[in-house]
Amino acid sequence: VSAAGETLLLQAVEGAAKLGSTYLGGVIFSAMGKYQVQLSPAGRENCVKGLTKVAHRAKELGVTLGLEAVNRYESNVINTVAQARSFIEDIGADNVKVHLDTYHANIEERGMAQAVEEAGEDLGYVHVGESHRGYLGTGSVDFPTFFSALKSSGYQGVVTFESFSSRVVSPDFASSLAIWRDMWSDGDDLAGHAKAFIGTALGI
Amino acid sequence: VSAAGETLLLQAVEGAAKLGSTYLGGVIFSAMGKYQVQLSPAGRENCVKGLTKVAHRAKELGVTLGLEAVNRYESNVINTVAQARSFIEDIGADNVKVHLDTYHANIEERGMAQAVEEAGEDLGYVHVGESHRGYLGTGSVDFPTFFSALKSSGYQGVVTFESFSSRVVSPDFASSLAIWRDMWSDGDDLAGHAKAFIGTALGI
Repeated sequence: VSAAGETLLLQAVEGAAKLGSTYLGGVIFSAMGKYQVQLSPAGRENCVKGLTKVAHRAKELGVTLGLEAVNRYESNVINTVAQARSFIEDIGADNVKVHLDTYHANIEERGMAQAVEEAGEDLGYVHVGESHRGYLGTGSVDFPTFFSALKSSGYQGVVTFESFSSRVVSPDFASSLAIWRDMWSDGDDLAGHAKAFIGTALGI
Repeated sequence: VSAAGETLLLQAVEGAAKLGSTYLGGVIFSAMGKYQVQLSPAGRENCVKGLTKVAHRAKELGVTLGLEAVNRYESNVINTVAQARSFIEDIGADNVKVHLDTYHANIEERGMAQAVEEAGEDLGYVHVGESHRGYLGTGSVDFPTFFSALKSSGYQGVVTFESFSSRVVSPDFASSLAIWRDMWSDGDDLAGHAKAFIGTALGI
């Protein structure tokens, strides 16, 4: 988190609070994108310092922060649940949580059960996405193992479905996420399918 | 393939032939990296034209070309076996083959068996890599399904193990591949493990 990033993040936290939101998560620890060098110890320290200040303000406003573990091409800071937990430990605030995304975990983690278990009590938000970001169940993500671990963990928070298609997403956003293929065209059908898929997996 | 790219690729083919190699593969169809826009129809046409010329020269030199399907963050041209086959069809030369890599397939394909089956007779080279590019069997790649499909396919070509660790790989190369974490430090142990893993999986 640079000074400018810290200011932007504080604005986002205050904006979220104004909207009545109690959660702000994602790649909030640095700019998202393919980095050219490994994170330095000084860079990591800056991140922790900035997030500590923001977490303090977020706490006053009743907002929880989620550090999303994303794949190596979107960040050189937090790629795994273990790295997110290490940040949370160093920040030392109880309103900072792990944001776990199956699309990214499929690339970076040792397995879906391990990722959920490592997050443990710190799990604050869940993104469910397929390996190619299309329809759930049509790619590589081991969803039976993931949802079984999630149920066992006692997690009671939000489970959000994420999917992208070049057919629907705006060109700028699609390009930033490297969405080159049409994975689907009918958003309503996709969403209905995801809701049923997740409901069945969680037995709800 | 730009004009400059075509020249470089021709030089690479001639260099490979001089070394006595009969195969040149990888991301040989465009510069590797995170693109900012989707591939245009004109861009694709340029690729096909350039590769057609290079394939002709490679054929004279007894060199086979392999089009590697890589993930969305490394190319906007060929992310899947189906896309590689579509290029091969358009190029129309019998010395251009599909180069399949399990690390990339784990992100882009519908499944490991489907990827091998779609490559079919066009499968020319295989890269075996784990989802996080570390030790085989410690990530998300469904290797039992992959090797079972590979055996069934009758593929008789090379199977190469690929893995990267920030501990060993040069900083520039590691950064271009977004290798931020130490997945291992002992290359000999890693290679021995991979050889045994692949041997067991293929029953050889």
